[in-house]
Amino acid sequence: MAKTRKQPRPRAETPKGFRDYFGADVGQRADMLGRIAGVYHRYGFEALESSAVETVEALGKFLPDVDRPNEGVFAWQEEDGGWLALRYDLTAPLARVYAQHRNELPTPYRRFAMGPVWRNEKPGPGRYRQFYQCDADTVGSASMAADAEICAMLADTLEAVGIPRGDYLIRVNNRKVLNGVLEVAGVLNPSDPEEFARERGIVLRAIDKLDRLGANGVRLLLGEGRKDDSGDFTEGARLSGAQIETIMKFVNAKDAVARQFATEAVELDRDDPIGAVSALASSTAAESGSWEYLRPRSAEMGRWNKAVVVHLRDLVHNSTIGAEGVDELEQIATLLDAQGYGPDRIVIDPSVVRGLGYYTGPVYEAELTFEILDDKGRKRQFGSVAGGGRYDDLVKRFTGQAVPATGVSIGVDRLLAALREKGRTGTAERGPVVVTVMDRDRMADYQAMVAELRNAGIRAEVYLGNPKNFGNQLKYADRRGSPAAVIEGADEKARGVVQVKDLVLGARIAENATLEEWKERPSQVEVPRGDLVETLQEMLASQDQA
Amino acid sequence: MAKTRKQPRPRAETPKGFRDYFGADVGQRADMLGRIAGVYHRYGFEALESSAVETVEALGKFLPDVDRPNEGVFAWQEEDGGWLALRYDLTAPLARVYAQHRNELPTPYRRFAMGPVWRNEKPGPGRYRQFYQCDADTVGSASMAADAEICAMLADTLEAVGIPRGDYLIRVNNRKVLNGVLEVAGVLNPSDPEEFARERGIVLRAIDKLDRLGANGVRLLLGEGRKDDSGDFTEGARLSGAQIETIMKFVNAKDAVARQFATEAVELDRDDPIGAVSALASSTAAESGSWEYLRPRSAEMGRWNKAVVVHLRDLVHNSTIGAEGVDELEQIATLLDAQGYGPDRIVIDPSVVRGLGYYTGPVYEAELTFEILDDKGRKRQFGSVAGGGRYDDLVKRFTGQAVPATGVSIGVDRLLAALREKGRTGTAERGPVVVTVMDRDRMADYQAMVAELRNAGIRAEVYLGNPKNFGNQLKYADRRGSPAAVIEGADEKARGVVQVKDLVLGARIAENATLEEWKERPSQVEVPRGDLVETLQEMLASQDQA
Repeated sequence: MAKTRKQPRPRAETPKGFRDYFGADVGQRADMLGRIAGVYHRYGFEALESSAVETVEALGKFLPDVDRPNEGVFAWQEEDGGWLALRYDLTAPLARVYAQHRNELPTPYRRFAMGPVWRNEKPGPGRYRQFYQCDADTVGSASMAADAEICAMLADTLEAVGIPRGDYLIRVNNRKVLNGVLEVAGVLNPSDPEEFARERGIVLRAIDKLDRLGANGVRLLLGEGRKDDSGDFTEGARLSGAQIETIMKFVNAKDAVARQFATEAVELDRDDPIGAVSALASSTAAESGSWEYLRPRSAEMGRWNKAVVVHLRDLVHNSTIGAEGVDELEQIATLLDAQGYGPDRIVIDPSVVRGLGYYTGPVYEAELTFEILDDKGRKRQFGSVAGGGRYDDLVKRFTGQAVPATGVSIGVDRLLAALREKGRTGTAERGPVVVTVMDRDRMADYQAMVAELRNAGIRAEVYLGNPKNFGNQLKYADRRGSPAAVIEGADEKARGVVQVKDLVLGARIAENATLEEWKERPSQVEVPRGDLVETLQEMLASQDQA
Repeated sequence: MAKTRKQPRPRAETPKGFRDYFGADVGQRADMLGRIAGVYHRYGFEALESSAVETVEALGKFLPDVDRPNEGVFAWQEEDGGWLALRYDLTAPLARVYAQHRNELPTPYRRFAMGPVWRNEKPGPGRYRQFYQCDADTVGSASMAADAEICAMLADTLEAVGIPRGDYLIRVNNRKVLNGVLEVAGVLNPSDPEEFARERGIVLRAIDKLDRLGANGVRLLLGEGRKDDSGDFTEGARLSGAQIETIMKFVNAKDAVARQFATEAVELDRDDPIGAVSALASSTAAESGSWEYLRPRSAEMGRWNKAVVVHLRDLVHNSTIGAEGVDELEQIATLLDAQGYGPDRIVIDPSVVRGLGYYTGPVYEAELTFEILDDKGRKRQFGSVAGGGRYDDLVKRFTGQAVPATGVSIGVDRLLAALREKGRTGTAERGPVVVTVMDRDRMADYQAMVAELRNAGIRAEVYLGNPKNFGNQLKYADRRGSPAAVIEGADEKARGVVQVKDLVLGARIAENATLEEWKERPSQVEVPRGDLVETLQEMLASQDQA
């Protein structure tokens, strides 16, 4: 009865939520990461590549969303009973590495890291369970100069990979200011840390939705709750009207400054009435939450960030922690100003909150401000590609001693997508020149020919499939995106010549001509065998120019 | 009673068998992989980065050692009941990717991949559970030209990363020849595939130990068994004396050819009697298994590999599969010869077996032949850094149709270790210029100064630790390997100058002078603030020359 059944064939599938990268995608990412590493290195940061695997204890419970339990990682049990897991970011491993090697590492320790991280989350569209991060952190410095430096480096990095100035904006805020505002509003009681953290979480998440829901949406979430377009209802924080307005003043601080600047402009800028009026008009767009309309003009650069700081100081005047946060923001603004990073690149913006629970001071975010079309064909800003902040407690988990640290993480896939949007990843990669096989017994000759091309720096290969059908060889060259094919049959060999087919020109002619005409065109040339390298070099150069 | 106990602090430790890479180690590997990718790309190979995670079914049971069960991977169960695992090499994922995308990918598909792989093995000295591989494979070509091409590319790759010609050797064999020899010797019965595979495994493992145990050790393992120095006994294959000699003739084929060449040389090379005699003498070193002594001299290049082929053909004349294997080796030898890869770089060597069960035809291995000292101070050859071969059945697991494939895997860590041995990874990485903080209120000035240096392409940073103790700042610069420190106190600021300290020169002077003398030396110069960039550029250039 029991007959051995044949093992079913495994399915050839990428596991759900994972993906493979092919060809140019790999090269473009490597190129981008190389540029980023160049900037980080110039800033004095050292490379670190930590193990992809950590003990579950070392990773701790620091997954981005405070509500989420430790389950968000891929973990397995060892024979000795211990649990190991794949890292879910590059910050937790940094804390472990610094705690482990603190006696040998320099302090402050500036390090950068790039590599995949893994999240055991439900996969969805555009939501993967393995993705790249690229981080830079300074461990062991409490100075705001460390935060300012990372913001400046982030601006330099974006420009180095090909995001032009004006197409990005780095927004800086401070968690202490937010805590101060909540204190002033009488929302929270800092004496009960657990309750404080929970309530602050609700408020943070509401503010974090400003871009998407606008100021009124945030107001609803801080108050009675909000019903979305689909009819679903989200519970609100049930703050009083006065409390909500205090928080909203904080969130909208930069809009208030924009209005103030615009009014001044109308009064003072007799020379530029149009610019002044348009600035004033745009100030009414403040509710949209779109900074594009509120960007200071170059004349206002030096004053802008400081005006925001003054405005914030006013809002938190009764809170010690709040005042401390404002002082820190002022230091950062001053340092950046001294280095020439104006608010056209780095701006103090109290609407930035960042999701992670562990931030303790400055937080920052890099946003790309150019517009793209979303799935439904509507224009929207590209949005955030990097974020970070100060986290003074991560190393303490291991050592018991607080070690101040601050750092940024770049979302590699998103930044690469942005570069593609902007056409900054170069043209499609060129395939190899294909040397066709006309006579399978002369493979050694073809291999020698291709070796000659490679030695001259030309990407080239012999066709290695079944050579019987010549059409298949040309189809293969087409699929590879080959710029040219080389043909040397018995006749050519006897006459000491080769045929060189320009496949790029051939394709262009084929689009605009009948097959008969095409055969007449000089997209294929016959040259002496000795001129092969030179002929191809010229052909590739002319393709580059076309 | 039940009082909440405080959670113990996690240990800051890399998990057992894993490791972290710091600074220059990361950069040197990236540099090496970049060079390798350059060669692969020029050969027409496309990059592929597949997911690090695969389904356990897709990975299959192809771990290197035939005896080992599927346990060698890190695996975990998904909520839906399926099992996922970390890839243990880059070949199994390639088979999955090709089977999944075979309709869109070109055929033949040449691809390269580089990245970490994971093995759930007992860690030991130099034995890690995560390490890098760097592979190149051609899928969909049955032509020996594909195998020859990969051997040639491997030679080019080793030279491109900095292994000079003469310091490496690529050894090529063919599994079919080995099967033929076993058939001729009457050892195995191909009609019982399972028993065939098991017995062949024993013989393969014995031959694989030739380098370590020498010919006599292998003879013992093929026969009655072998007692090692510690007294431990390894079971033998219990072959008859005649059977063992047939196998050993095969294994030592290149030694026989070496003797033949040496004898001819004595008879013919009247002009070079010394070379001839030394070649003859070295032929008696054949038992040592060391190819170094048996390398053909340049005059013999063209004939060498063909002579080995002739010798092998004689050994397997009665076996169909064996003759097929010899034909394949001959094709490879002919193709390589035509491209100028002589046996000083790529040699037919029947003693190469490669451990993996899945190889079906040619197998190849790259060995570094220069000597290093082992742990006990004894000289030995550096040994293998890459290996591969033809495996025609891996894609079939998924699709049911055999797809011929051949490829090589480079052991990245071992190759990098070899480059370090040869001093080919460049000098120790230079740290950043450190701008010291003399006045903490002037941090903005120091930041602006460091921005100026970076913009001039100089790696530089401000000291971000507590600036109170100036000695700590210089200690930090020392630990970073900084080439220079910049000092601008209140006095310098007032006079419009800066102090620039040459830390490399300083260290050199300090080694040879008393502290008093050192203070007199011009390792520290005072220059106008405006000359800072130029001064540093000159200082760094002079350090490069020293």
